[in-house]
Amino acid sequence: MRFTMRVNRAAIALQLIAGVVAVIVPVAAQENASGDPLPSWSNGAAKRAVLDFVRDVTDKSGAKFVPAEERIAAIDHDGTLMAEWPLHVDAIQMAFARHRVKELAKKNPVWEYEQPFKAILDNDNKELERRLRDTFNVLSLARETHGAMTVDEFSATVQKFLASAKQSKFDVPYNQVIYTPMLELIALLHANQFKVFIVTGGGADFVREFSEKVYGIPREHVIGSSPEYEFRRTPTGGDLVRKSNIASFNENDTKAENIQLHIGRRPILVAGNSNSDVAMMELAAGGKKPVLNLLLRHDDAEREFAYDQGAEKALEFAQSRGWQIVSMRSDFNVVFPFRKK
Amino acid sequence: MRFTMRVNRAAIALQLIAGVVAVIVPVAAQENASGDPLPSWSNGAAKRAVLDFVRDVTDKSGAKFVPAEERIAAIDHDGTLMAEWPLHVDAIQMAFARHRVKELAKKNPVWEYEQPFKAILDNDNKELERRLRDTFNVLSLARETHGAMTVDEFSATVQKFLASAKQSKFDVPYNQVIYTPMLELIALLHANQFKVFIVTGGGADFVREFSEKVYGIPREHVIGSSPEYEFRRTPTGGDLVRKSNIASFNENDTKAENIQLHIGRRPILVAGNSNSDVAMMELAAGGKKPVLNLLLRHDDAEREFAYDQGAEKALEFAQSRGWQIVSMRSDFNVVFPFRKK
Repeated sequence: MRFTMRVNRAAIALQLIAGVVAVIVPVAAQENASGDPLPSWSNGAAKRAVLDFVRDVTDKSGAKFVPAEERIAAIDHDGTLMAEWPLHVDAIQMAFARHRVKELAKKNPVWEYEQPFKAILDNDNKELERRLRDTFNVLSLARETHGAMTVDEFSATVQKFLASAKQSKFDVPYNQVIYTPMLELIALLHANQFKVFIVTGGGADFVREFSEKVYGIPREHVIGSSPEYEFRRTPTGGDLVRKSNIASFNENDTKAENIQLHIGRRPILVAGNSNSDVAMMELAAGGKKPVLNLLLRHDDAEREFAYDQGAEKALEFAQSRGWQIVSMRSDFNVVFPFRKK
Repeated sequence: MRFTMRVNRAAIALQLIAGVVAVIVPVAAQENASGDPLPSWSNGAAKRAVLDFVRDVTDKSGAKFVPAEERIAAIDHDGTLMAEWPLHVDAIQMAFARHRVKELAKKNPVWEYEQPFKAILDNDNKELERRLRDTFNVLSLARETHGAMTVDEFSATVQKFLASAKQSKFDVPYNQVIYTPMLELIALLHANQFKVFIVTGGGADFVREFSEKVYGIPREHVIGSSPEYEFRRTPTGGDLVRKSNIASFNENDTKAENIQLHIGRRPILVAGNSNSDVAMMELAAGGKKPVLNLLLRHDDAEREFAYDQGAEKALEFAQSRGWQIVSMRSDFNVVFPFRKK
């Protein structure tokens, strides 16, 4: 089968240089014995759409061929690669912010009386959710927990958090609440010379702390929200400081705009799960090349969560424009690495 | 020789996938018959420093080994990869701006009286240089010639310019005033699994129009000055518009800050030619890994130009901190592709 051959050919090439570039080999290159590159996807329209698309754009003799340098994939993070629900409690960066507030509380005694910090210190998730509907509080939380340190200090702080953090519903580390079928998708795209970018509303520097290890996606392929940086000279060199103010909130239209800033090309494959990903999908659809837009729907209360909140517009667009909906319940036969199904 | 083997091993791997990823094979992979990956570099301290550095950071058993994913190279564009002198006439993006002013003059009759447009229409380079010392005039020129169009329209406009533009002193297309030894450096770095970024004060979208073809550096590895972008919906998709205002002027400290925004790592190799590149070199030097900072000095009035203007601080830093100066006169035995020496 032509498709499988192409995967193997690239795999051979990658093995030859594997000692040196091990990191670019996808973490989960789990083509199984039968040669199926997406074993955790159920046979159905979504899997078929992915396989057909990858076959079409890599078929040099076909009408839908896209040269390798133009095979750009843009994939959202929270809710698309990793469980994010409930947003104000267990989305990974919110867990980090809560962890930081508790860590820094002694130095900030006023937080006992000040929102949204008080809600976090009181473990009052309902109040926290209510408070974070106000963007001012979100910014204030981000500023106090993510800023005013060098990028090296931030990196160490995030690594320390990751070493012990657990997603509370499933009680497992966050690298166990990523979606196995999406890892397979990334591996399939890498094997077919796609350049895969994470385009996230989360902080770029935050997601970079695990993108290579968990997804096989290098730091420079993470586009996210970012603070202003400030270069500070030292007697022998210099460091970069993350300032407290946010320079770019990478949500909605900003995702499309930052794709231009960082990549300079329209993506041909976009995967997302919320309204915030619609602009990326529109950007892809506005080009002249073949496009696959994938919208992951959280409809699996048993194995993950069932919620359409925040995805209403995305679902409407997917239906009216023929974007591919991926149902977690029907299209994934495995969800997480820590469970066999 | 270990070094050469590594080049060939990667070359084989690349050939296997060449049909698909031809574009990532460096344009000038000119290892010559003797196995020298830098045949256009004269034997001397600069060439030795490059070869030693690449050998050291790729030697897995050595103390200076750097894993492939951390091998980030940041290379300035104008004056480091391509001739830029005299700045206000022949630097490629200035040639583009002049071309655009002439193209748009009929629609803007007021330019006959308004600077810096008048100087351009009068072909008065001395007056133009004087006017462009005022940043307001630089911004005004950039705004009128680069903005208020979609990124696709901008791409077509630049391509049209490139098809006929010539550097005026040498009377050759701009892809002939790139430095052959620097192409060899890029090829050597690629063959040793470096990720090579162009970090330029020029416009990112502008340089992207030739970076892949001329240097083998993909669009997403170009970090430069950028306008604000605006996503505009259409009935079936969406487009990105380059607004008239400039969001980031990628010079000096901003180069270091944008390296964090786009790459999220300190570079270990920096090449530049002016004061504007010093912050990148300081950033590299501030890390814990082995570092090679290269400062290209324009001291060759015969084959290119001799000027230290704008590089005074860089030369001072290079000497006091032991950064490697690359003398065009002594270290390059070939300068341009259109001449044999």
